[in-house]
Amino acid sequence: MTVRIAVAGASGYAGGEVLRLLLGHPDVEIGALTAGGNAGSPLLAHQPHLLPLADRVLEETTADTLEGHDVVFLALPHGRSAEIAARLGDDTLVVDCGADHRLTDPAAWDRWYGGTHAGSWPYGLPELPGQRDELRGARRVAVPGCYPTVSSLALAPAMGLVELEVTVVAVSGTSGAGKALKPNLLGSEVMGSLSAYGVGGAHRHTPEIAQNLAKVAGGPVAVSFTPVLAPLPRGILATCSATLKDGDADVRAAYEKAYADEPFVHLLPEGHWPTTGAVLGSNAVQLQVAVDRDVNRLVVVAAIDNLAKGTAGAAVQCMNLALGLPETTGLSTVGVAP
Amino acid sequence: MTVRIAVAGASGYAGGEVLRLLLGHPDVEIGALTAGGNAGSPLLAHQPHLLPLADRVLEETTADTLEGHDVVFLALPHGRSAEIAARLGDDTLVVDCGADHRLTDPAAWDRWYGGTHAGSWPYGLPELPGQRDELRGARRVAVPGCYPTVSSLALAPAMGLVELEVTVVAVSGTSGAGKALKPNLLGSEVMGSLSAYGVGGAHRHTPEIAQNLAKVAGGPVAVSFTPVLAPLPRGILATCSATLKDGDADVRAAYEKAYADEPFVHLLPEGHWPTTGAVLGSNAVQLQVAVDRDVNRLVVVAAIDNLAKGTAGAAVQCMNLALGLPETTGLSTVGVAP
Amino acid sequence: MTVRIAVAGASGYAGGEVLRLLLGHPDVEIGALTAGGNAGSPLLAHQPHLLPLADRVLEETTADTLEGHDVVFLALPHGRSAEIAARLGDDTLVVDCGADHRLTDPAAWDRWYGGTHAGSWPYGLPELPGQRDELRGARRVAVPGCYPTVSSLALAPAMGLVELEVTVVAVSGTSGAGKALKPNLLGSEVMGSLSAYGVGGAHRHTPEIAQNLAKVAGGPVAVSFTPVLAPLPRGILATCSATLKDGDADVRAAYEKAYADEPFVHLLPEGHWPTTGAVLGSNAVQLQVAVDRDVNRLVVVAAIDNLAKGTAGAAVQCMNLALGLPETTGLSTVGVAP
Amino acid sequence: MTVRIAVAGASGYAGGEVLRLLLGHPDVEIGALTAGGNAGSPLLAHQPHLLPLADRVLEETTADTLEGHDVVFLALPHGRSAEIAARLGDDTLVVDCGADHRLTDPAAWDRWYGGTHAGSWPYGLPELPGQRDELRGARRVAVPGCYPTVSSLALAPAMGLVELEVTVVAVSGTSGAGKALKPNLLGSEVMGSLSAYGVGGAHRHTPEIAQNLAKVAGGPVAVSFTPVLAPLPRGILATCSATLKDGDADVRAAYEKAYADEPFVHLLPEGHWPTTGAVLGSNAVQLQVAVDRDVNRLVVVAAIDNLAKGTAGAAVQCMNLALGLPETTGLSTVGVAP
Repeated sequence: MTVRIAVAGASGYAGGEVLRLLLGHPDVEIGALTAGGNAGSPLLAHQPHLLPLADRVLEETTADTLEGHDVVFLALPHGRSAEIAARLGDDTLVVDCGADHRLTDPAAWDRWYGGTHAGSWPYGLPELPGQRDELRGARRVAVPGCYPTVSSLALAPAMGLVELEVTVVAVSGTSGAGKALKPNLLGSEVMGSLSAYGVGGAHRHTPEIAQNLAKVAGGPVAVSFTPVLAPLPRGILATCSATLKDGDADVRAAYEKAYADEPFVHLLPEGHWPTTGAVLGSNAVQLQVAVDRDVNRLVVVAAIDNLAKGTAGAAVQCMNLALGLPETTGLSTVGVAP
Repeated sequence: MTVRIAVAGASGYAGGEVLRLLLGHPDVEIGALTAGGNAGSPLLAHQPHLLPLADRVLEETTADTLEGHDVVFLALPHGRSAEIAARLGDDTLVVDCGADHRLTDPAAWDRWYGGTHAGSWPYGLPELPGQRDELRGARRVAVPGCYPTVSSLALAPAMGLVELEVTVVAVSGTSGAGKALKPNLLGSEVMGSLSAYGVGGAHRHTPEIAQNLAKVAGGPVAVSFTPVLAPLPRGILATCSATLKDGDADVRAAYEKAYADEPFVHLLPEGHWPTTGAVLGSNAVQLQVAVDRDVNRLVVVAAIDNLAKGTAGAAVQCMNLALGLPETTGLSTVGVAP
Repeated sequence: MTVRIAVAGASGYAGGEVLRLLLGHPDVEIGALTAGGNAGSPLLAHQPHLLPLADRVLEETTADTLEGHDVVFLALPHGRSAEIAARLGDDTLVVDCGADHRLTDPAAWDRWYGGTHAGSWPYGLPELPGQRDELRGARRVAVPGCYPTVSSLALAPAMGLVELEVTVVAVSGTSGAGKALKPNLLGSEVMGSLSAYGVGGAHRHTPEIAQNLAKVAGGPVAVSFTPVLAPLPRGILATCSATLKDGDADVRAAYEKAYADEPFVHLLPEGHWPTTGAVLGSNAVQLQVAVDRDVNRLVVVAAIDNLAKGTAGAAVQCMNLALGLPETTGLSTVGVAP
Repeated sequence: MTVRIAVAGASGYAGGEVLRLLLGHPDVEIGALTAGGNAGSPLLAHQPHLLPLADRVLEETTADTLEGHDVVFLALPHGRSAEIAARLGDDTLVVDCGADHRLTDPAAWDRWYGGTHAGSWPYGLPELPGQRDELRGARRVAVPGCYPTVSSLALAPAMGLVELEVTVVAVSGTSGAGKALKPNLLGSEVMGSLSAYGVGGAHRHTPEIAQNLAKVAGGPVAVSFTPVLAPLPRGILATCSATLKDGDADVRAAYEKAYADEPFVHLLPEGHWPTTGAVLGSNAVQLQVAVDRDVNRLVVVAAIDNLAKGTAGAAVQCMNLALGLPETTGLSTVGVAP
């Protein structure tokens, strides 16, 4: 079987990473590559690392250009996916890397993104309890945000063990902010500096983390989330903590059990700690847990590549699930280090 | 008045930064520069940025070499300061950048560092309530750790406003780990990667943060502290949070009041967030506060340069206080950016 | 004497660095701070490291705003300085950080920048033979480009010793490109990557290097110049080479002699090599020379901070010279390292 | 066919990269993994990115441990390979990532490395004229040095067009220096700084570049080579130049012809310039050429990943050639960017 795919938003980081991964996927043929303002320019001008596609020119992102493919990956600005998807047939698999269809609560959408919610799609985090089944055979998939991916996987197995008030401080590389031309994203500003943003629960990924954990916990979870920007292109390291209900609970066993059969989520052996360098370019999640007995608190540290498992890797993983391919096809747990 | 100073541990990062600052201090004459294994080699081999001292050769760190100076800065491995200090006269100001004399509780010392406690000295964080007076005229000063400096200043004004369980995740540049030749500190390992260490309350700065906050709060404070290593040479950005006792408390006013007269601690105007780049090389602390109403939690973000205000800047500030010089002499609030 | 200064282009990197240095200059009072598109916004939004100026708001860059100061620093886009300068009185010292008045040959200006040349001003590289005298008492100064500064100082003492064909490959941090919002300057693009630009003699600094060397050599010098962009905010390391006329010439002696009395240019002791980290934030130039006997070639390596000695430090040094202040006032040879 | 391989030096950067690539090679089974001082420790402690090998423990590097494999990769300190190789059967393919067997001239070996030369092996740069045939069916291969790889490929097609005096300034990431625990390789020293080393023809890769070019040119070539260390883990960008014999020669055509059929060497379309980010993790070489008419000089810029095409990628490519597998198996021209 060869699947013909298209990528909308192929000049951005998410679109570029989808293509990087699909160039190594044995069952995929790369069709239309589209963009907004960059339409008409060679892909190589934006993705100089995708040499096998060096002869491609970006087309305009329209439903006409995208239709006729088996799978369409959307890597568009928030709020743009619904309209395009509505014009693609129900038999086309649409994998949305944007936020449009992640939240289930229309009020939450309106509060955090503004406007009318376009409705939720199957949520592309197969490692959450029960989630994988929703994705098999799906024809619409909402790829999770990068912070919600790492935070939810770090905390989900603890939901029965801790008080439902969690703190997440996640340090991220800059590619999570995309290619937007903002002064604070310039190399001169980023290198040699650390900054926090969206402090006080102001980041749009907060309700998505809360939604995921609430589903696992079976009730509302208070999430204090702070993202920090650090000088590296890729990677998120999340430090997540919560008060233990029972200080003697075997938290390690809970995590071992939760992820024993997961191909991409790895609880590291004791004494080893996650680093984002070790997962660079890979679809792996590295986790480690600790109990701080002085304050009776569980601390979980988790690392992902925000562009891979945090976006494009998840998108490919979900494509595999939706199409009935082996879930790990074209994906790797081997990072590019150092 | 010209003060003659010596620096023990002049080939390391803390010692080098003390010298960098003192080269701009109008009242100081630089005397003996000593080292351990590097004794006998030119200072320039270790501190190529200290051109005015390019003709200096490192002497061996002994009490004999250090005596006869008005001020001796100790930047030695933990556990080495007490012996040296005992042999320096009581009229010599000894400023210890190490941990030996920070903790007041001998049991805490034994648990976290091991062995017999050498006793506590006046603690060099003048911005903590009541602390400045202890430092005026002192002849022994314990310079705080870098993480305790930023964390304590970030949380002290909140002690009356929050539940006494605080979470601190502090992201640090690599110079905080010193010049130790460890594989995980190699440039190839550090660049492009993030890692957590001392997770679960295992970092030695945890009891020092707790000690500071307890003194302000008037009772024990539970501190969950996680340090994260990021790819930059200098800077710490701490994200500190705690549950508010009263969600309507005017936390901003509390911080404004606490630091209104402090020359080095700056609550930024609303809408501005601290970055470590902005305090690089300076003695400034930049703070911002936010209240997350969804989870009723105060979040404070603070930035320092770990080598400056976090170590050597504090050492110079304390020297000024101890000697009766203007507290800000030789120190700046202007960072080197970008 | 207190000198009242203004800075046009205060929201950019060059303007910010002029201000950083002048905040430490004992004879200066900071007056008007102006900008183009950023006029009306607080300086702190653009220069978060300049805390002592945190209450300043940027005014619009006009001759009216700038007049009435003793010194006006222009850090404007190329081609904008002449018009402003023409409206400032002849007794006002105008220090232009832009390129407008560096080249002496109108044809060269037209070829490299385009349009009518506004005329040359005294060239602000006092360490070139004979140049210092031109700057004493001057009321117009053209601050050199960053690459020409480091390349000219690296090669000038060799002009009698080598064939007049030189190769310069200079690796630079990103701040040299300014705050322009270009995709290739985003942190995600810059970090973890190296790129060359202006290859084949296409960079505008090429004729400026050639002009400087020709003046020293007394005849035309062929300059092959390639700039490389590397992942750091500040610093230029130039590798310069040329064929020796006489393989036995004592090149080290020539460099020692050339810079023996220069406060900012340092030929390092043998065995030490320049690093840009060692000159970060300082006005120092670090040099080292080697002779490759196999190919009979002189190789000179030189390091500067492109924003300091490469731009703003030179501007302050020239102001000192022009006003008759000690040349080193407010400037340092101590870098901020690590 | 499944090839059973062993890696000696599996805890270092070269060995780790060989393993990373071989984990994606369809015809390979990974056997013994050996180390020197790190023998006995888990591979994961040194290579945390190689999750599929997380259960492996490093054995000691001895001929006994290595024998019985179809292919043995040696990633050992210089001077260690000959002894091991002598004890492995002639039917075992030995791919040496070290320098021992690269130079053909025993006198050159003695001058640059010291001691008795162990003899030269087929040189693993198949893109050099005539070289590929030497590698087919070979049972001993000397993998080129990283600088010689990029420099030789950048200059080989120009050998008939330029005077035989070339200048190479190559900027490298830090992994090229390996995991040696040296102060100048610490993250704190490397980040935010640039440094030159081995200046004046002192780097051991100089004779290897000269040997390669001489073979192509049919006579001696004078090589002025300077390596520069920059703050990134991986990547080399080389700027190579030489005087053109005929300023009107069609150099672009020469490069197009030289590499038209090469799967890994890419002359970029005009207007595009190589970046190391674009080849990160890949086996690609990106090239661009320019002619500086002012000085009649050819300038070639080339980018590789020093660990991939510069070491381990070349090693795998040579294994494929030696074993008669398709040359590109397990290798990619797609970089991991940003």
